[in-house]
Amino acid sequence: MAKLSEKAAENLMAVRETKPLIHNITNYVVMNYTANALLSMGASPVMAHAESEVEDMVSAADALVLNIGTLNEDWTTSMIKAGKKASKQGTPIILDPVGSGATALRTNTAKKIIDEAHIAVIRGNASEILSLRRENSKTKGVDSVHCVNEAAQTAGVLADELKATIAITGPVDLITDGRRIIRVSNGHPLMSYVTGAGCTATVIIAAFLAVDSDPVSATATALAFFGLAGEVAGKRASAPGSFMIQMLDALYSITPKELNEGCKFQIYR
Amino acid sequence: MAKLSEKAAENLMAVRETKPLIHNITNYVVMNYTANALLSMGASPVMAHAESEVEDMVSAADALVLNIGTLNEDWTTSMIKAGKKASKQGTPIILDPVGSGATALRTNTAKKIIDEAHIAVIRGNASEILSLRRENSKTKGVDSVHCVNEAAQTAGVLADELKATIAITGPVDLITDGRRIIRVSNGHPLMSYVTGAGCTATVIIAAFLAVDSDPVSATATALAFFGLAGEVAGKRASAPGSFMIQMLDALYSITPKELNEGCKFQIYR
Amino acid sequence: MAKLSEKAAENLMAVRETKPLIHNITNYVVMNYTANALLSMGASPVMAHAESEVEDMVSAADALVLNIGTLNEDWTTSMIKAGKKASKQGTPIILDPVGSGATALRTNTAKKIIDEAHIAVIRGNASEILSLRRENSKTKGVDSVHCVNEAAQTAGVLADELKATIAITGPVDLITDGRRIIRVSNGHPLMSYVTGAGCTATVIIAAFLAVDSDPVSATATALAFFGLAGEVAGKRASAPGSFMIQMLDALYSITPKELNEGCKFQIYR
Repeated sequence: MAKLSEKAAENLMAVRETKPLIHNITNYVVMNYTANALLSMGASPVMAHAESEVEDMVSAADALVLNIGTLNEDWTTSMIKAGKKASKQGTPIILDPVGSGATALRTNTAKKIIDEAHIAVIRGNASEILSLRRENSKTKGVDSVHCVNEAAQTAGVLADELKATIAITGPVDLITDGRRIIRVSNGHPLMSYVTGAGCTATVIIAAFLAVDSDPVSATATALAFFGLAGEVAGKRASAPGSFMIQMLDALYSITPKELNEGCKFQIYR
Repeated sequence: MAKLSEKAAENLMAVRETKPLIHNITNYVVMNYTANALLSMGASPVMAHAESEVEDMVSAADALVLNIGTLNEDWTTSMIKAGKKASKQGTPIILDPVGSGATALRTNTAKKIIDEAHIAVIRGNASEILSLRRENSKTKGVDSVHCVNEAAQTAGVLADELKATIAITGPVDLITDGRRIIRVSNGHPLMSYVTGAGCTATVIIAAFLAVDSDPVSATATALAFFGLAGEVAGKRASAPGSFMIQMLDALYSITPKELNEGCKFQIYR
Repeated sequence: MAKLSEKAAENLMAVRETKPLIHNITNYVVMNYTANALLSMGASPVMAHAESEVEDMVSAADALVLNIGTLNEDWTTSMIKAGKKASKQGTPIILDPVGSGATALRTNTAKKIIDEAHIAVIRGNASEILSLRRENSKTKGVDSVHCVNEAAQTAGVLADELKATIAITGPVDLITDGRRIIRVSNGHPLMSYVTGAGCTATVIIAAFLAVDSDPVSATATALAFFGLAGEVAGKRASAPGSFMIQMLDALYSITPKELNEGCKFQIYR
């Protein structure tokens, strides 16, 4: 646990030193906020979605974010093209399956992206993640997930099936690659009042993936950092507008030492 | 009047308790801000525009926002598809005809949406609303609307013709369904320095429409709430950047009791 | 120099008095922030990109912004259509070649727009601007630009070749039309932590172009104003989130007199 906290501090330092280029193909709602989050923490965001340039752009990137929040068919084509190129060159990819399970288009698109590209991390809320089960999945259904242990077990089976690290975020985050399980309890209730808070968690994970070759530790430490930013913001703001601005400030201001001391991990195995 | 103020408080409470899902097909400029406004006030925003999923999405929604601020032909197709589905299932629709009157595309699109879907409320500024008159309209032209009474009369005729509640917003808002006329004088001059202030008024009306089956009272009380948020923000900020953040904070912080006491209605009939 | 500072004050006053309409065909990431920047400074933004309406919209505009930050082929068609119409009617156009040089699509699109429309000002960082050289350009390559004088010389040759005023922005901005050279050293380090800071500089130049027929003085004075807003914001905020909000406040609050006194110009010839 102390070791993972130290890794968090190292990852933050590495991002600020190397300023990794994070290529985002993401939704209209969060583009501005996630770009600002990446800049605030010290990374370099780029947004580009045209089919004719995504391969060029991803070839220069240190990580790729695929987010289906306001997708249509053209964007899906670009996501898959970028995803294939990133897979080929070994650039880590994180998928944010926004709204998967809510419409057939989203569920099918998320699954298609998983099939066509090598996804390092999938981050979503519980219902989004569980919607990604294959037809013959060995996981239990959503309705039968009654407690933390069951959720972890389900996520673990999914991680195995999808060959990716899974992050289910919420008041407490769960990260697993099917083997290891880590929970992160950093965060603040006002985060759920900021649009794209989950999408922002995703891009922060992407920045850590660019400097940490272990997806589980990159994801857990990024979520601790993001949650700590929420805690810091929550001390300075008591309503969502001010809070979302203080979040950006905290992503810039939190030192590696503060992160090391502020991480709230539970490592199960 | 006291009764309508009480209704405003009830509507705000109902939104915060039931967290209605507001499906937005809206413009790129305001997506982030209007999503944050909905979250701040206690509602649940979703943005989805792909033709292949809008019907799925609207089937789960409690209200639908159609906003033509940065439209193109594809988005119009999706708006009409979503609008038809919402009409069929009785989900209230609010149309924001941004820029109608400024280009033929916008005027024609707004009129087409009105023809194809059952619109509960249309909110715009005076020139946008007046551009929606049909060719054989009985309303007077824009140039001949010289005073408040004439604007109200014109809006009333339009409401009859378009079979919708009309909200003309500005320093003082006018709401009419052709029968009743209400004016709301809540607000603050800095609101006109925030991009998408009108679009934000629209989504707040949508949230109130989700919990109040009377479009006139839903619209008037929503505009009072929005205007009061402007007044609260105006006490805390003296320039547009801080003001727009304080607006979000106020949408979160204003209590039903404060709203009840702060509404500035004039009920004409 | 005193004269140019006075011109800056005059331009700011003229924007606030005449509220010029700035038509933006720009990228998704910055649409909200640049619209708010224009409103804060006193201008009137409109965003419209549909091929079927850009001519209508530009016919009412006082300046046109073309920004290729998240382009695809459809948007390029609209940009060229709007650019041709603006050229025909003498409306000033500013091009922001975001990412030109990073992908072939962007470089080619920027060059195509320059070929098809009469561009008054091109604003970018050094690598974006240098990517616009024609094949047989007389400029030296990027690698051979070692000092300020050489950059100025290269920009001057480019301005001649492209028949446009060139603005290379950075810690110190360079503005030249091939004849005159002005440097502006207003600004603050936190500006580089706000997404779309460059795009925002571009729209502020557009607003000044709408009231000042000399592209060189419009551009230099706009960049001084924008940089001064950064300096004012930097006194009130120490991290990027608060800083970007304070920037908007400063664009609204800075008086013509303060601008006159705060401009940091170096006029070379």
